[in-house]
Amino acid sequence: MRPSGRAPNEMRPVILEPGYAKKAEGSCFVRFGDTHVLCTASLEERTPPWLKGQGKGWVTAEYGMLPRSTNERMRREASAGKQSGRTQEIQRLIGRSLRAVVDMKALGERQITVDCDVIQADGGTRTASVTGGWVALQQCVAWMMERGMLTASPIKDNVAAISCGIYEGTPVCDLDYAEDSTADTDANFVMTGTGGIVEIQGTAEGEPFSQDELSALMGLAKDSIADLVRLQNEAAGLK
Amino acid sequence: MRPSGRAPNEMRPVILEPGYAKKAEGSCFVRFGDTHVLCTASLEERTPPWLKGQGKGWVTAEYGMLPRSTNERMRREASAGKQSGRTQEIQRLIGRSLRAVVDMKALGERQITVDCDVIQADGGTRTASVTGGWVALQQCVAWMMERGMLTASPIKDNVAAISCGIYEGTPVCDLDYAEDSTADTDANFVMTGTGGIVEIQGTAEGEPFSQDELSALMGLAKDSIADLVRLQNEAAGLK
Amino acid sequence: MRPSGRAPNEMRPVILEPGYAKKAEGSCFVRFGDTHVLCTASLEERTPPWLKGQGKGWVTAEYGMLPRSTNERMRREASAGKQSGRTQEIQRLIGRSLRAVVDMKALGERQITVDCDVIQADGGTRTASVTGGWVALQQCVAWMMERGMLTASPIKDNVAAISCGIYEGTPVCDLDYAEDSTADTDANFVMTGTGGIVEIQGTAEGEPFSQDELSALMGLAKDSIADLVRLQNEAAGLK
Amino acid sequence: MRPSGRAPNEMRPVILEPGYAKKAEGSCFVRFGDTHVLCTASLEERTPPWLKGQGKGWVTAEYGMLPRSTNERMRREASAGKQSGRTQEIQRLIGRSLRAVVDMKALGERQITVDCDVIQADGGTRTASVTGGWVALQQCVAWMMERGMLTASPIKDNVAAISCGIYEGTPVCDLDYAEDSTADTDANFVMTGTGGIVEIQGTAEGEPFSQDELSALMGLAKDSIADLVRLQNEAAGLK
Amino acid sequence: MRPSGRAPNEMRPVILEPGYAKKAEGSCFVRFGDTHVLCTASLEERTPPWLKGQGKGWVTAEYGMLPRSTNERMRREASAGKQSGRTQEIQRLIGRSLRAVVDMKALGERQITVDCDVIQADGGTRTASVTGGWVALQQCVAWMMERGMLTASPIKDNVAAISCGIYEGTPVCDLDYAEDSTADTDANFVMTGTGGIVEIQGTAEGEPFSQDELSALMGLAKDSIADLVRLQNEAAGLK
Amino acid sequence: MRPSGRAPNEMRPVILEPGYAKKAEGSCFVRFGDTHVLCTASLEERTPPWLKGQGKGWVTAEYGMLPRSTNERMRREASAGKQSGRTQEIQRLIGRSLRAVVDMKALGERQITVDCDVIQADGGTRTASVTGGWVALQQCVAWMMERGMLTASPIKDNVAAISCGIYEGTPVCDLDYAEDSTADTDANFVMTGTGGIVEIQGTAEGEPFSQDELSALMGLAKDSIADLVRLQNEAAGLK
Repeated sequence: MRPSGRAPNEMRPVILEPGYAKKAEGSCFVRFGDTHVLCTASLEERTPPWLKGQGKGWVTAEYGMLPRSTNERMRREASAGKQSGRTQEIQRLIGRSLRAVVDMKALGERQITVDCDVIQADGGTRTASVTGGWVALQQCVAWMMERGMLTASPIKDNVAAISCGIYEGTPVCDLDYAEDSTADTDANFVMTGTGGIVEIQGTAEGEPFSQDELSALMGLAKDSIADLVRLQNEAAGLK
Repeated sequence: MRPSGRAPNEMRPVILEPGYAKKAEGSCFVRFGDTHVLCTASLEERTPPWLKGQGKGWVTAEYGMLPRSTNERMRREASAGKQSGRTQEIQRLIGRSLRAVVDMKALGERQITVDCDVIQADGGTRTASVTGGWVALQQCVAWMMERGMLTASPIKDNVAAISCGIYEGTPVCDLDYAEDSTADTDANFVMTGTGGIVEIQGTAEGEPFSQDELSALMGLAKDSIADLVRLQNEAAGLK
Repeated sequence: MRPSGRAPNEMRPVILEPGYAKKAEGSCFVRFGDTHVLCTASLEERTPPWLKGQGKGWVTAEYGMLPRSTNERMRREASAGKQSGRTQEIQRLIGRSLRAVVDMKALGERQITVDCDVIQADGGTRTASVTGGWVALQQCVAWMMERGMLTASPIKDNVAAISCGIYEGTPVCDLDYAEDSTADTDANFVMTGTGGIVEIQGTAEGEPFSQDELSALMGLAKDSIADLVRLQNEAAGLK
Repeated sequence: MRPSGRAPNEMRPVILEPGYAKKAEGSCFVRFGDTHVLCTASLEERTPPWLKGQGKGWVTAEYGMLPRSTNERMRREASAGKQSGRTQEIQRLIGRSLRAVVDMKALGERQITVDCDVIQADGGTRTASVTGGWVALQQCVAWMMERGMLTASPIKDNVAAISCGIYEGTPVCDLDYAEDSTADTDANFVMTGTGGIVEIQGTAEGEPFSQDELSALMGLAKDSIADLVRLQNEAAGLK
Repeated sequence: MRPSGRAPNEMRPVILEPGYAKKAEGSCFVRFGDTHVLCTASLEERTPPWLKGQGKGWVTAEYGMLPRSTNERMRREASAGKQSGRTQEIQRLIGRSLRAVVDMKALGERQITVDCDVIQADGGTRTASVTGGWVALQQCVAWMMERGMLTASPIKDNVAAISCGIYEGTPVCDLDYAEDSTADTDANFVMTGTGGIVEIQGTAEGEPFSQDELSALMGLAKDSIADLVRLQNEAAGLK
Repeated sequence: MRPSGRAPNEMRPVILEPGYAKKAEGSCFVRFGDTHVLCTASLEERTPPWLKGQGKGWVTAEYGMLPRSTNERMRREASAGKQSGRTQEIQRLIGRSLRAVVDMKALGERQITVDCDVIQADGGTRTASVTGGWVALQQCVAWMMERGMLTASPIKDNVAAISCGIYEGTPVCDLDYAEDSTADTDANFVMTGTGGIVEIQGTAEGEPFSQDELSALMGLAKDSIADLVRLQNEAAGLK
């Protein structure tokens, strides 16, 4: 029995609220239950130095948590003077995931930075960030198309993510904090709208897991991500 | 004529939403028009090392802005590796302002950290932070009293803040970004519920200002702060 | 009764010694009693990047304290790896104050950096820095005019500063350390030679203060600053 | 055809040289072809502060690359003033992998730090580090048992790692740099001696990959890791 | 011919002004011509952690330059966020030199920090720092003896320093900046009052030098240091 | 009697293994007994900014120690966030020493960085680094000449280094760790193939030393360095 009473294949209520941030070219406030992340997409008419002159753009991501998004206040990273290893790992994952569905030539020599700031954390902040980040990115591209900066969208597909795990012996999807902190195995899946795998990260927290268990988690992830893709498209006003 | 069409003594719509952050002992989401700040109060059962053993507590504040709270994306301070001079100046001001109305002996050997994170910035983020920070602090104290950790409140008075300035020759209250960036003079006032001055910071952006102009700004500030104090008490459920 | 035996409106002996630093384009060793600050002005034929090509110059300030300028040795900021919030706040204040009296167009695309290094600290280091910094700046401009780099001075007015406060119930001017550490209210005033206010920063250390008290402090400040302006002009060989 | 001419399921020559570092309690110089990593295990009779008094030990890892281990000289991280996100991600992975096979209660209140320093890099440095790191750890435990500090080994199983990927459409094991930089999909597998999965990290570099492709890579990984485990046991003098 | 017209064995005018800094336990403002350094000695009743409980004290030094002590303004190290390699090298040299003449057992579990801050730089700042630092240290010890904290001085001997070099083929003592920047060889000598060598650092700036040249420089150094020791004792009121 | 049983003028076995690092333009793995340092030379077709356009090149050095190269594990400098003063002092010495024998005009507008990474430390790492660094540099120049980038070698002479000291009253050469940690005097000599002195750094660890003692150490150094130069030439395939 899951602490929340959810069925094994039942996600938390997911809300994707586009356009939350008035100042950004694109944004989405994403909620998976009590996990709340504000994603913004910021356009710059320049590329990173190492890409200059290649006719290609770049998409990158940054991630942060408000100090009291968690049960215990965490030290503010700006005051500590550096981003933790965990923060860097997460923002690298978000960036890779979003880049996987963008045609950089079609984007042209521009950079879009997707900031994912966790307002409240209850498990699954990185997968919520990928899912909401895609909506913000989509909004930013729509903003550019309205202004004639692009004639066709460089976004080739959706990308969304979910964390699944083995909780008290049962494979379940969309781990919340109560599950995440005690699960035996925790795996994050990033998949496209057409079902391709972009990234998979599975970790045994206690006992090692088997290939069969991994397959069971992947089955749950596929179904959840299909649902998330539908919600993304609704939020983005597509189809 | 003000860009927003407001009267010189008219504040933007102010909304104080207490309890916004589920994980914190106290919180307030404060909006002055399009300026939005999330304030949380976090209790720790320890004091800073230099206060140890003196039977007194401490209240401190930290301030941050989300990278895309502004029209142009700002560099994330955690990634830059340090807090800017402006950030430090503001968080020192918030901390001093809140400490001015707290009886540290009555608080006991504890520390309350008030985090003020700017979700959207349209001028006046530091004064909104003081105003909302007081509500978060008040909630935190109420939380402690419910649990019997305190028998009487160590908060001696309200404290709230407003920025006033001279815009196109006219003294006006509650500057928004459009006014702030062109005003000749900009002054921040921090005052108590009983009308005492806790802090005043006035700066001539263009021409120096006169003592008469300063008095006019202070008059506007007094009235605005009286309104803010009323809103604080409503939000905090105090009569 | 003030610890030093001074009258409420009596400043400490003020000595402004121009040309102290042989290597700098302008300099002033300023003493307010036992508070000693070395101010130097350094000219560079370039502007900050964000000002480039606008036909305007820039004046900025940096502030530091020798580790044993104080009663207790402080940690050296270079060794700590960063400037404290207090240091940054002060150097921002000095820079703003000096810029308020300089015509940046007339200065041309150049930067002058005023370094204020506290050799000995006995209260009022920031106001001494503004006062001495102006003399260093004035010397630097004179140096440029002698060399034909400027035909008219871009300095529009004097700027000087004083701290006043309420000590044991009495408004007094030019607080020394003994007073500063126990005063109820401490206010720094920065004013021009023609009596305009450039900056005012008042803080209640204990009880909040009233508008009347603020007016009394401002009266003291005006008189003191008039005296300081006279001393500046003498030191700079003007008039 | 692989650039090296290897068969799809053929690893590079693997050499595990235990005891390379005279000063360390345990060490192993590990070579996968031209990828060379020096792993050392250092024992300290203390735990991290957050574990104190719980009767448990800790195993952690640090990772670094010599500046000219690569084709182009990289900036030295000590001189840059921080470890890159990639470095932190890798050392976190190594630490988690090693901890998965250690009984922390049996280790007692001690910390073992496994340093993995890349002397030469030709692809697969993180998986070589896990594989060689286990031998260093094993040596350190043997060193402790010889001295009577432990009566039974806290190491519950082997752990080793390999990277597999899809190169020109074919699943292959043990990617070298030439393959790694052009492979469509790159997956790192960390498995125990008994075949349990400890960690899996798969990333689509170009096109997303399918579940079938992932299964093929896992098949290759299982066989390779079984070979590595045999080599580990030989190197460690275990039968 | 030396730029200053001095004879090869002629030092610049040396002035040692003890007690310059009112707040410190010991201090000396030292001038070698236009090179001016303020040395202060600060006593703390604690030792560095690694010395704790050994019944011994410690003497350490820190070094800094005011940004405009030089012909061109240097970046402030506190603002750059770190001390340069040169700064660290110099402060390590000063510390070692002073420790060489102190009996750490006799000092007891205390630390004395000697800060050497360069007010104006014209060559030889490190050797001036050692020479003036000894006077500050001596004053600090006298201060302790007056208060009965020590019954006998832990200072076993004088220590002073001079830089010598080969300028246009001639060995000369006490290089000033004009000489230092063009000299072929530059050597710093640190010696005791009884003529023992504490430290020698010789560097060929252009051509390598010979053992005979080194001997000639040492001869000059011995005589200069004997003079400096006499001046130290006068300044310190000894003999 | 030396701990190792060596005669006073007997160096440890010295092995210079050129070409150890496959990826670098030049390299040398140098061993002085149990002190092992990997030196690599990396060529870049650019100069430091301050040299630009002067038709001259630059040679610089960086130094690091693997965390467990020593008896006790040291903190990794990349993780500490800065290089220690000792590290900076050593890499500055290596750089100066190598530059002393290179004709920068003949090198042209290029930079060669010599990295010296200590794999195992048993005393004398800095002098081993200079000695091995020269071989790496020589290899790098040979690599350039083979490719027609240079027609004549810019290396004017050999440069090698040795540490000598006074151990239990006797002058000895090539101190190992057991001697280094207890020697009264420790001096590092850097000399050219033709016997010129490039750098000398002598430090009294306990009692000051005399000029005679320094001469005795220099005599030992001369002979040792002559031997090292012969080994360098053999390793580099010269003569």
